[in-house]
Amino acid sequence: MTTIENPIVAVHSTGDGPSAWVAAIKAEVPGLDARPALEITGDDLARVDVSIAWKLPHGKAASFPNLKLIQSIGAGVDHVLADPLRPTHVPISRLIDPFMAVEMTHHIVLQILRWHRQLDRFECHKAERHWPLSEAFDHRHLHVAILGLGTLGEHLSRALTALEIANTGWTRSARAVDGVATVSGAAALDDLLSRSNIVVCLLPLTDQTEGVLSAELFAKLPKGSFLVNVGRGGHLVEADLIPALESGQLSAAALDVFRTEPLPADHPFWGDARIYITPHIAAEVNPPTASIVFAENIRRIRAGETPTGLVDLGRGY
Amino acid sequence: MTTIENPIVAVHSTGDGPSAWVAAIKAEVPGLDARPALEITGDDLARVDVSIAWKLPHGKAASFPNLKLIQSIGAGVDHVLADPLRPTHVPISRLIDPFMAVEMTHHIVLQILRWHRQLDRFECHKAERHWPLSEAFDHRHLHVAILGLGTLGEHLSRALTALEIANTGWTRSARAVDGVATVSGAAALDDLLSRSNIVVCLLPLTDQTEGVLSAELFAKLPKGSFLVNVGRGGHLVEADLIPALESGQLSAAALDVFRTEPLPADHPFWGDARIYITPHIAAEVNPPTASIVFAENIRRIRAGETPTGLVDLGRGY
Repeated sequence: MTTIENPIVAVHSTGDGPSAWVAAIKAEVPGLDARPALEITGDDLARVDVSIAWKLPHGKAASFPNLKLIQSIGAGVDHVLADPLRPTHVPISRLIDPFMAVEMTHHIVLQILRWHRQLDRFECHKAERHWPLSEAFDHRHLHVAILGLGTLGEHLSRALTALEIANTGWTRSARAVDGVATVSGAAALDDLLSRSNIVVCLLPLTDQTEGVLSAELFAKLPKGSFLVNVGRGGHLVEADLIPALESGQLSAAALDVFRTEPLPADHPFWGDARIYITPHIAAEVNPPTASIVFAENIRRIRAGETPTGLVDLGRGY
Repeated sequence: MTTIENPIVAVHSTGDGPSAWVAAIKAEVPGLDARPALEITGDDLARVDVSIAWKLPHGKAASFPNLKLIQSIGAGVDHVLADPLRPTHVPISRLIDPFMAVEMTHHIVLQILRWHRQLDRFECHKAERHWPLSEAFDHRHLHVAILGLGTLGEHLSRALTALEIANTGWTRSARAVDGVATVSGAAALDDLLSRSNIVVCLLPLTDQTEGVLSAELFAKLPKGSFLVNVGRGGHLVEADLIPALESGQLSAAALDVFRTEPLPADHPFWGDARIYITPHIAAEVNPPTASIVFAENIRRIRAGETPTGLVDLGRGY
């Protein structure tokens, strides 16, 4: 592997731009030469060994001839793989930040408890200054199907178990996880759905999982089930959701991701009280904690070691 | 101890009346002679050895001359102690139902995450079809002071720890609980409040704890803290709450209990969006699971054994 003199870390993000990220990474690695990717030109392009980016413009990664690592700012790498000019010999790392797993779990637990304990119903009655009659909630009736059992799914399963909420993780190929009930494969998924009343989608977005949350899947659940999508907008067939709510097959859905983000103002999801929407905030990357992970991967790649969160390109995640 | 021939269990509850309770207890103990307390008269009064009740009319317990146990339907026994004619030689048991501890924990976790993750703010913006800007939530900034570390407080602490939400339990007198950070006494309370931004009241209601949630306590917290009262309405000085919210000393409060229940329609708490109110549903007793506990205590008292949940009358809970 080529040794680069005075290597540069190229940083890119959308939204507020890369400056906060450059500062956070430098705070974690004193003396590091980290710069906004789009400001790197000329001879400096050959000095870039690590690209840390969220939605880097297509073709930019290919302009770094000595790139050794593409580090995603985020748990997903679909934005990296979407670049048709991506240098395919360069390894890609997903961001696996233990901090984000906690936030994701908190988001999902909040949505599950909000649904189970009828928070919205009590809020409506608050406006009327009169309480509804209610029966005791019974958590023994809950069973959560966790689709996708990566770092986030495993973390969620352990938290739900601690909260005495029954759950089972589903993976495409069989995988044993200590202390977590798991099943795998297509037939087991049908069985799991038939005995679950909450489905949480934490799958990666691949050709196989695109549109997996569809009328066909909803029909396999008991009537009145609850859907939580915190994967990607592409997992849900959006046109199938409101009909499933209208028929009562689903009683509610919590969506943090959408086909188009931000959600267009004329989208029907905004106006439906049974759809709990949030703007992709379930597990936002947090620069101070993510930079701890990035610093370790910069160190590893420069020392010739394997970085964390390496993507298996055969699987696409 | 007198042995009673053909003993009777007297059952009383408010709301829907005792019939559902009688049925649930009989389902758990086949052949049991259980009857609504107010229907027991004449010679049968002397056959009652166990009174299982929620808010039994004052004087009724004293009409059972051979009573061996007053079993509260609920975690609190203030409704028992409030009876001036209560037979003071009869032991009292609180209901300690592991099922209810889970529900109580779910309620409190829901309220904490709802506050921390700004659910209401996102709901308001949903109506406007436009998202607010937001920063990543950071659970590392949370610290929960749990006032009262009985069965419920200990259960909550373990769940919060599993969710990686820092917490400390406070008790009046020192008590070590394995795996739970605890402090005790008045000085330690002041210190704990100064480094907590969430206070959960799970105290019993006694002369010492009446009105403990007051402007004086709020002032010891960092500005913008969050109050959760799931103890009793009498713990909160209700007149102190809205001023604390107006000044910003508290940013929100979740109340499940009130001085007057149901909350009167003209009460100012109904109209305040910073006050999350629920109608005493945090941990409703659930007849099928509570009856498992009652069945065991009936068995124990008739076998001359010590029942579970026995109240220390010196402490009042």
